[in-house]
Amino acid sequence: MSTLLEQIESPADVKRLSVEQLKELAGQLRQFIIETVSRTGGHLGSSLGAVELTLALHYVFDFSADKLLWDVGHQCYAHKIVTGRKAGFDKLRQADGPSGFPNPAESEYDQFAVGHAGTSIATAIGMALGADIKKTDEKIVAFVGDASIVNGTNFEALNNLGLVKRQLLIVLNDNSMAIDATVGSLAKYFSKIRLSHTYEDMRKTTKNILEHMPIIGKSMEEAIEKIKKTIRMTLPGSQLFESMNIPYFGPVDGHDIESLIQLFEAVCELDHPAILHAYTKKGKGFEPAEQDRSRLHSTGPFEVNGDAMESVSAVKGRNFTDVFGEAIVELAAKDQSIVAITSAMCDGTGLNGFRERFGERFFDVGIAEGAAVDIAAGLAKEGLKPVVCIYSTFLQRSFDQIFQEVALQNLGVVFCLDRAGLVGADGPTHHGLMDIGFLRMMPNVVLVAPATETEVKGALEFALGANKCVCIRYPKDIVGAKDSESKACRKPFVLGKSVVVRKSADSQIVVVSYGAVLGEAIKAAEVLAGEGIEAEVVNARFAVPVDKKVVAAALAGRCIITVEDHWAACGFGSAVQEAVLAAGGKAGKLRMKNLAMGAEFVKPASRAQQLMQAGVNADNIVRTVKELISE
Amino acid sequence: MSTLLEQIESPADVKRLSVEQLKELAGQLRQFIIETVSRTGGHLGSSLGAVELTLALHYVFDFSADKLLWDVGHQCYAHKIVTGRKAGFDKLRQADGPSGFPNPAESEYDQFAVGHAGTSIATAIGMALGADIKKTDEKIVAFVGDASIVNGTNFEALNNLGLVKRQLLIVLNDNSMAIDATVGSLAKYFSKIRLSHTYEDMRKTTKNILEHMPIIGKSMEEAIEKIKKTIRMTLPGSQLFESMNIPYFGPVDGHDIESLIQLFEAVCELDHPAILHAYTKKGKGFEPAEQDRSRLHSTGPFEVNGDAMESVSAVKGRNFTDVFGEAIVELAAKDQSIVAITSAMCDGTGLNGFRERFGERFFDVGIAEGAAVDIAAGLAKEGLKPVVCIYSTFLQRSFDQIFQEVALQNLGVVFCLDRAGLVGADGPTHHGLMDIGFLRMMPNVVLVAPATETEVKGALEFALGANKCVCIRYPKDIVGAKDSESKACRKPFVLGKSVVVRKSADSQIVVVSYGAVLGEAIKAAEVLAGEGIEAEVVNARFAVPVDKKVVAAALAGRCIITVEDHWAACGFGSAVQEAVLAAGGKAGKLRMKNLAMGAEFVKPASRAQQLMQAGVNADNIVRTVKELISE
Repeated sequence: MSTLLEQIESPADVKRLSVEQLKELAGQLRQFIIETVSRTGGHLGSSLGAVELTLALHYVFDFSADKLLWDVGHQCYAHKIVTGRKAGFDKLRQADGPSGFPNPAESEYDQFAVGHAGTSIATAIGMALGADIKKTDEKIVAFVGDASIVNGTNFEALNNLGLVKRQLLIVLNDNSMAIDATVGSLAKYFSKIRLSHTYEDMRKTTKNILEHMPIIGKSMEEAIEKIKKTIRMTLPGSQLFESMNIPYFGPVDGHDIESLIQLFEAVCELDHPAILHAYTKKGKGFEPAEQDRSRLHSTGPFEVNGDAMESVSAVKGRNFTDVFGEAIVELAAKDQSIVAITSAMCDGTGLNGFRERFGERFFDVGIAEGAAVDIAAGLAKEGLKPVVCIYSTFLQRSFDQIFQEVALQNLGVVFCLDRAGLVGADGPTHHGLMDIGFLRMMPNVVLVAPATETEVKGALEFALGANKCVCIRYPKDIVGAKDSESKACRKPFVLGKSVVVRKSADSQIVVVSYGAVLGEAIKAAEVLAGEGIEAEVVNARFAVPVDKKVVAAALAGRCIITVEDHWAACGFGSAVQEAVLAAGGKAGKLRMKNLAMGAEFVKPASRAQQLMQAGVNADNIVRTVKELISE
Repeated sequence: MSTLLEQIESPADVKRLSVEQLKELAGQLRQFIIETVSRTGGHLGSSLGAVELTLALHYVFDFSADKLLWDVGHQCYAHKIVTGRKAGFDKLRQADGPSGFPNPAESEYDQFAVGHAGTSIATAIGMALGADIKKTDEKIVAFVGDASIVNGTNFEALNNLGLVKRQLLIVLNDNSMAIDATVGSLAKYFSKIRLSHTYEDMRKTTKNILEHMPIIGKSMEEAIEKIKKTIRMTLPGSQLFESMNIPYFGPVDGHDIESLIQLFEAVCELDHPAILHAYTKKGKGFEPAEQDRSRLHSTGPFEVNGDAMESVSAVKGRNFTDVFGEAIVELAAKDQSIVAITSAMCDGTGLNGFRERFGERFFDVGIAEGAAVDIAAGLAKEGLKPVVCIYSTFLQRSFDQIFQEVALQNLGVVFCLDRAGLVGADGPTHHGLMDIGFLRMMPNVVLVAPATETEVKGALEFALGANKCVCIRYPKDIVGAKDSESKACRKPFVLGKSVVVRKSADSQIVVVSYGAVLGEAIKAAEVLAGEGIEAEVVNARFAVPVDKKVVAAALAGRCIITVEDHWAACGFGSAVQEAVLAAGGKAGKLRMKNLAMGAEFVKPASRAQQLMQAGVNADNIVRTVKELISE
C-alpha cells in the first residue's frame, strides 16, 4: 500500500490534499479496493467507478455535518475507506468487519443502512424538509446511479422534489450499465445522450456551468436560466428533469476530479434542489471489471493475474440458482407459454440460459419490481405462464402488486424467490426472511419450498401446472448432494402434501422441515438415531396449504419441531401452529416447537454461521428434541 | 329514466347511436349516476368526468375482444352501466349489487379487479406482450388519471413501454384534480399546460392530429413525426413523454365526444404504444361535484336539491378518523416536532385540521406511498416526529420502505393506519387485512390498536413518545359511545401492556380483543353473564409485543379467545399463539381459539355484515365460548 492512502484517517485528510495528490489517491484507492475484494468478494465495479466522485464530494462537503445519502449503497467502498474504516477492510462483509453497504452503526458518515434501490432521493427530501423545519443549514447530497433512478420510488421522489425550498443536490452517477444491462426508455435516453457526447462536449458543459454560476451581485435564478440555456443548446439532456422543474447540470466527466471539485463548489451553494449528471465508467481502472461489468458487479474472491483475473471461488457444488436456471430452460423448451420476467437480476436469478435460448419470451424491466409483477399479471391474463424471478428481499417491493394484481385476480403467476432465507455476507437488507409471512396472508396463493436439486425442478413443474399463483422459495446456497436425496424427494409435488424423508411412525418426535434446511433435519435425525432416539423427518414442501397429516400428528400429541429459514413471526412454523390450533378447538396436549430466526436483524457473516447463531441447524434440532423428550 | 339509456344493454347498442344521440346518452348517464350515487354513495366526481371518454372508447373499440384496463377503477361507472350492469346499479357497492370498481367476476368487459392506483400501464404492457407472443390482435387500452400516472409503478411501466412493439393506447384522463389536490411537479407541469391552453388550442391540436394521421401510402412514423412537430409548435406538453420516447398526442377536449371518436379511430391503428392526453372536468355536469371536487370524490348518500346537495348520511357518531384528526391537532399544538405526511388522502385520513393549522409541517406527496414513507424516514432522521397517515391497504405499497428505511434504522416514525380491517362497500381491494402480519415480522416495530375514542389519543400520545416505529391501526367505523369506555381504557398506554376491561380472574374464559372489536367482546361477555357464564375481557392494545400476562393465562390453561379484524393468517391471534407456544416448550393443555377473517377475499357489503359473516362479532364470541366450555 502506498503512502497517501495510509495517511487518510478521515475526510479531513482528504481536504488537505492537492488536486494532483487526489488523483494519486484515487489510483491508490482503486488498487486497495481491487486487492481487498479479490480476497473478500464484494461489489467491485460500482465502487471502482465512483472513486473520483466520492473524493470530490468529501473534498467539498463536510459529511460530519452535511448528509450524504447513498442509493443502493454498494458503490460506497471508497467512502468507507476515507471515513475511518480502512483498517478493517480486509474483513469486508464478514462477521467482524465492515458491511458492504452504508451503515450508521459503523460511522457517523453514514446516514441510512441501505441495500435496496430507490431510496436516496426521498430520504434526502425528508432530511431537507427536516432541516428546514429545524432551521439548520447542513447540506444534503443524494448519490444515485442510473439503474436506480428509474425505480418507482425515486421517480415519486423526483416528482415531489418541489416540496424542498432549500439546497439538496442529487448526484446522478451514470455508468450507463446497471447491475445487468440497463433497460427502459430512460436508460436508452441517457445512453443516446452519452453516445452523442464527446469528452470535449463534457469539458464545454463543465465550463459553461462554472462560468454562469452565481457570484455576488448576480441572481441565482438568472444564473441557472443562463446555464440551462447554454446547456440546452449543446444537448437535450435536461428535457426529462426540466419537465419536472428540476434544475439540471451536466453531463460532466465523473472521473475529472479537478472539475468535479469546482462543480460541487459551485452547485453546493444553490438554495434549491438540483441534479448533477456525471458520466463514469463502471469498473474503472480494472480491466476485467471494465470488460465484464455485469459479472464483476458483485463477485466472489478472485486472483489478479496482471490485467486478467481468475475466480478462486471456494464454493463446492451447484447452487439452487443454477439448478433453477437449468430447470426453467428444460421446461420452457417443451412449453411455449412459459415466459420469464426479472427486475435487473437476470444473472443473479439464473436466467441467463433462458434469455439466450428464449429471448422473445424474456423480459428484464430494470429495478422496477412493482412493474415486473404487473407485467407478469398481464401476461398471465393473456393465458401465458409467467415466471417472475426476483430475490425474496426485493419482492417485498411488489407486495401490493402480488396482492391485488395477482392474488385477487387468482392468476397463474409463478414466483421464484431466489435468496430466500439468510444470504450471508450481504447482511440485513438482503436476507429474505419475510416472504412466507407476507405471501401466506393472501388468498389464492400457494407456497412451496424445494429441499433438494430434484425438488427444484419438481416444484417448478408443479407450479407451472397449477394454474394458480405459486411462490417457490430457495436460498443462496448449494443444493444438497444428490445422494442425500431420499426417494421421497423424487416424488412429484402434490398440492399440500408433504413427504416423509425418514420414517418412524412410532416415534413421538416429528421434525417438519420447510425447504433447504431439510439437510439439517436429516443430519439431526442421524445423530439422534446414533444415540438411540428415533425421529421422523418430514419434508413439508408446502407452507400453504399446510399438510393435514402434520396437523393430525400434532393433534395426536406427537412432538412437532418445525424448522425453517425465515423469521419465526408469520413463518412456516407459525402457519403450522395456526392450522393446528384452528383444527384443535377441542385441543388436548400440544407439543410444538418452532426453530426459526428470532426477531432481530441478522448481521453479515457466512450463511452457515448465521443459521447456527439462529439455531436453525442440526445441533439445535438435536438439543431441542432431547429437551422435549426429557419433559 | 329516459329512453336512450333504457335501450343500452351492451356496448353494441352504443355503437349504433349517432354523435347527437351519444351526447344525449352522456347526459342521461350523468343523471343516472348522480341519482344512483345519491342513494348508494360512491365515487361520484371521477365517474362523471369520464362519461364521454368512456362512450367514445366503447364506440370505437370492441371490448368484448379488445382490452380496457382501468387505473384505480373508481371512474368506471359509465362503463359498468353500458356493459350490462345498469339493472343492478341501484345496489351499487352493496352485497348483492355491482362493486364500485372493475370486476371480471361481474363482466367480460372488465379485466382486472382493481382499486389501488398505478397498475393500468404495467398490466397493459403485460397483456400487449402476451398478445404479441400469442400473435393475436386485440387492441389494448389503459385508462389512467393524472393523479395515478405519477405513481411509481406507472412510471416504472412508462419506462418499460419500449418493450411493446405493437398497439397499446394510454388514455390520460386529466381532470387536474386528484383525490385530494394533485401534488408534485408533474401535476404542476400538466396544470401549467392546461392553464396556457384554450379551448381553441385543443380544437387545433385535435385537427392537427387528425390531419396528419397515417392514411394509405403514408408511413406511420412520418405521420407521427409531423404531428409531433405540429403539436410541439403549439405547446410543450409532450416533453416528458418524448424524453421517454413515448408518442404523445394532445391535449384534447375529453368532453367533445365527436372529436374523441375521430381521435380514437385514428390512434387505434398505430402499431406501437401511444398516449392520448385528454382534459376533463371532475364532477362534470353536477354543480356541487364540480365545485367541491375533493369532497365528492367519494361520497355517502345525499339529497339532490336543484343544483345543490345535502348529505343524508345515516352514520351516527364520530368515527375513528375524526377522533384521530382532533388528537393530532391537539398534540401538534404542544409539540413543534410533530409533522404529518399523507399520500393523497389528507381528507380521508382526517388531516384537514392539521393541514389548516400546521401547513408548514404537513406534506402530501400524492399517490406515492413509497416516497411518503421514505420522506418520513428522512424527517425522523433529522429528529422530527413524523406521523404517516395512509390507509392500511395502501400502506402495502410501502412494505419494503417501512422494512428498510424505518425498521432497520430503528427510526421513530409513527404510522396511523386508517381503514384497517373491513371497510364495507369498497370491497376486497380496500380492506386492511394484512397490516398486522406484514408489520409484525419487522424487528423494532411496535403494533398498537386503540379500541375507544380515549384510546385513539392515548395510542397516539404513546407512539409520539416512544422514539420507535409505532403503527396504530383503526377501522373505518364509529368509535364506541363514550360511556361504554371502561376506566381501564383511560389508562395511559404502556408498552406491551393490555388492560382488563371486564375482570373475572376466576373465570376460565378470557376474551382478548385487539382494537375496535372490543365492543363486540364486551357485548358477548354481557350476554354470557346473563346466562351465568363469566368471561374476562382483555383489551390487548398491543399486538407487538404480546402481553406476557396473556401468555401466562394461556399457559395456565385458561381458554383464550382472541378477536380481531384481520386475516387469521399472521394476525393478532397468530402472534399470541406464537408467543404462547414459544414460551410453552413444556406446554400442557392449551385452549386457544382465534376469531378473525378466513382466507377468502371479502366482498362489498356493510362493515357490520362483513364482520358478522366472518364471525368476528358478539354472537360468535358467545357461541365459541359455549363450545369451549362444553368440551
